[in-house]
Amino acid sequence: MKLYDYYRSSAAYRVRIALNLKGVAPDERTFVHLRMGNQRAQDYLSLNPQGLVPALQLDEAHVLTQSLAICEYLDETHPSPPLLPADALGRARVRAVALAIACEIHPLNNLRVLNYLLHTLGVSAEQKDGWYRYWVDVGLEALETQLAREPATGRFCHGDTPTLADICLVPQIANARRFDIDMSPYPTLTRIEAALNELPAFAAAAPARQPDAE
Amino acid sequence: MKLYDYYRSSAAYRVRIALNLKGVAPDERTFVHLRMGNQRAQDYLSLNPQGLVPALQLDEAHVLTQSLAICEYLDETHPSPPLLPADALGRARVRAVALAIACEIHPLNNLRVLNYLLHTLGVSAEQKDGWYRYWVDVGLEALETQLAREPATGRFCHGDTPTLADICLVPQIANARRFDIDMSPYPTLTRIEAALNELPAFAAAAPARQPDAE
Repeated sequence: MKLYDYYRSSAAYRVRIALNLKGVAPDERTFVHLRMGNQRAQDYLSLNPQGLVPALQLDEAHVLTQSLAICEYLDETHPSPPLLPADALGRARVRAVALAIACEIHPLNNLRVLNYLLHTLGVSAEQKDGWYRYWVDVGLEALETQLAREPATGRFCHGDTPTLADICLVPQIANARRFDIDMSPYPTLTRIEAALNELPAFAAAAPARQPDAE
Repeated sequence: MKLYDYYRSSAAYRVRIALNLKGVAPDERTFVHLRMGNQRAQDYLSLNPQGLVPALQLDEAHVLTQSLAICEYLDETHPSPPLLPADALGRARVRAVALAIACEIHPLNNLRVLNYLLHTLGVSAEQKDGWYRYWVDVGLEALETQLAREPATGRFCHGDTPTLADICLVPQIANARRFDIDMSPYPTLTRIEAALNELPAFAAAAPARQPDAE
C-alpha cells in the first residue's frame, strides 16, 4: 500500500488521520509537491488523471482516489474502530457534516482555485483572501449552528468517538488557522477540534509533523 | 418524508434520481427557489442551516442534508436496487467518481459562487463563463480519461447497473449543456449519459420535468 501525500493538502490530511485511527501504515509514502506542480507530472497523471492528492495505490492495478472514498474503503476493509455510527440516521448525519466541509468549503479554497483567482482573473491578494475568508465563514457558521444545537453532538462531532466528520473538521480548521481566520465565532467547532487533537491519531497526522513539511 | 427541492439544483437532481431508482416517493415536495433567495429565508435556515437544497425531512426531528449523504441513507434503508457495488474496491471506485463531480466540479460552479464572482469580485460575464467552462473541462477531462481506460466501466460508469456515480454524472452534464459546454471531447461520458437518460428513473428527474420548472 502506497500513499501519495502532501503535508499541506487537507484531503491528504484526512486520509492520514483515517490510516492512523485504523492502525494501518502504508508500506511507502510518496510526497507530491503541489506548489511545485508535481501533481501535473505525466507519471502522476497516469496514476491519477485528476492530478490531485491523496491517492492510495493498493497494487499495480488499483489506485484509490478522492479522500472520502478512500476513508470509506478503509472503514469497510478495516472495520475497527468504525469511522461511521452503526445506525443509518447517524451515518447520514456524519456523512453530511463531512460533505459540508468536503463539498462546500474545501473545494473553493484549495490551491488551484486560489491560483486561478490570482493569475487568470487577476484579482488582488486582498480580494483572494476575502474570498477565502468568505467561504470558510459561510461554511463554518452553518456547521457551528448545526453542531451546537443537535443533541447527537458529543465530545466530538457525533458522540464521543471520532468519525468521518471529525476527520474532515480538523484539517479544515487547521487550514483556516493558517489563513488567520478568526475562530472565535465557532466555539463548538474549536472545542471539538481541541479534543480531537489530543488523540495521537489526529496529532500525528498534522502537516507540521510530516516528513515533507517545509 | 418531505423533499426540499429546486428543479435546477444539480444536487437535488441527484436525490430525485436516487428516489426514483429506489421507488420511493416523498409524501410532499417543497420547492425552494434558489434564484429568488428562498434558501436564505429564516424558516428554511432553521430547518437546514446550510441554506442549500436538497434537504430530506423524515419527521419533525430529522432532516437529512447533503445530497450524497441522502443517497447513501436511501441506499442503506432501501437496499434494492443497490446504488453501490457489493465489493469494497468497486464501492471505492463508484464513490470516487461521484466525489470527483461533487467535490471538484459542482462546488465551483453553483449559483452562489457565480454570484460572488460577478457581484463581489466584479468579474465580467465573459470571465465568469470562462471560470465555469474551465472547471467543468478540468473535471470532465479527468473523468473521461478514467472512465475510458478502466475495464470496470460498462454501459454505465460502473458495470451495467446505475450507481451513485451515474447519479452525479447526469446532473453535471445537464448543467454543462445548459452553459453550452462543448461535450465532443467526452465521448465516453456522453455515451453513458445517453444510456442513463433512457432509464425512466433518470428521465423523470430531469429539471424540465419538475413542477417548479420555469
